[in-house]
Amino acid sequence: MSLSDNIVWHPSIVTREDRQARLGQRGTLVWLTGLSGCGKSTVANELERQLHAGGFATIVLDGDNVRHGLCAPPERLMLEQDETSAKRFGLGFGADDRRENIRRIAAVSQLFISAGLLTITAFVSPYRDDRDRARKLIEQSGAAGDFIEVFVDTPLEVCERRDPKGLYKKARAGEIKNFTGISDPYEPPETPEVWLRDTPSETPERLAARIANYLDSAGRLRAN
Amino acid sequence: MSLSDNIVWHPSIVTREDRQARLGQRGTLVWLTGLSGCGKSTVANELERQLHAGGFATIVLDGDNVRHGLCAPPERLMLEQDETSAKRFGLGFGADDRRENIRRIAAVSQLFISAGLLTITAFVSPYRDDRDRARKLIEQSGAAGDFIEVFVDTPLEVCERRDPKGLYKKARAGEIKNFTGISDPYEPPETPEVWLRDTPSETPERLAARIANYLDSAGRLRAN
Repeated sequence: MSLSDNIVWHPSIVTREDRQARLGQRGTLVWLTGLSGCGKSTVANELERQLHAGGFATIVLDGDNVRHGLCAPPERLMLEQDETSAKRFGLGFGADDRRENIRRIAAVSQLFISAGLLTITAFVSPYRDDRDRARKLIEQSGAAGDFIEVFVDTPLEVCERRDPKGLYKKARAGEIKNFTGISDPYEPPETPEVWLRDTPSETPERLAARIANYLDSAGRLRAN
Repeated sequence: MSLSDNIVWHPSIVTREDRQARLGQRGTLVWLTGLSGCGKSTVANELERQLHAGGFATIVLDGDNVRHGLCAPPERLMLEQDETSAKRFGLGFGADDRRENIRRIAAVSQLFISAGLLTITAFVSPYRDDRDRARKLIEQSGAAGDFIEVFVDTPLEVCERRDPKGLYKKARAGEIKNFTGISDPYEPPETPEVWLRDTPSETPERLAARIANYLDSAGRLRAN
């Protein structure tokens, strides 16, 4: 049979279920949200370490690998596109841009879930509407349980005291505009699946283990 | 130790190499290019079927799962965003939009490769510059060999005769503008890693097997 006869030829399509069976797990989006400096990336990386050690297939999406590519700012896109395109498609930190940023991340996460991966995202994602839209997208294209919201609930004072990248200082000085917690609101989740409170006795290992335990008890760490 | 002490605490990060070792393969982008109706999606799905049957972890990115989400057109984004945002971020078929479409797909593919997956894309991707930019992105963030261009070289007459979605007919009637092969150029690859010529004696199985063999001989089907 030739490709020219593709009207009668139907390939069997590999499904999400097939991929999950291959990996022995269920495609799941673990969505970490919280203020800048709250420990999202630290917990995300530690969670991935624990899951990987358990033999699971994982990916972490965070500012480090998304803001340089898929959701790059205009000034970066300008290196390879004309100015009009770069300004149009590049993402800054205004409300529309943040919304589009979260939309792209949710859309990509959906692809990762269909690949069967345990997908961990670590973005401030300050607006409830945006997070709910991400949840809706994931649940509608799959099932309830595919989206797990994790609130990394570190108080603003603690985040600002840490200020690992010096961003709070700049935001207080007015050098950064629209900075969540300072000049832009953070809308905390009301009913996250996992609520992590950062107390002096907590460790990243224990916080990550809390999420891993949730994944396990929710049946995400086996194929069906 | 508390999250508050994260200055001194460094999690061990799971790397692309770790993920590849877990999956027993090397993250690779198989980039199919060719005219509408050339058989890209058929070959992509059959290739995935063969690789999956061999125990490998795969994903296919094509219009079906990308054009509804990550690279949705303005009219779709308008369902959930205001008109200004939808028009700004939505992608049509003009030259700038096509370029941004390919840029986003390449950026997402890069993430999939870092997850260790055998990633298969099936898009017309008519412009040589865009494909070369995708290759550059992938090779610079990884290594030569991570990007495999596959030219599905079905003659225009054959594609137009098949016309599975009736698009050529509409393009000839002027109902679709900027249609590759009719009113917009297709720039064929000059030195693709795999060159598939669609002849009457070919089958999708054999064409896909040709790519799988290439992947195997290039060392992509083992972790190192």
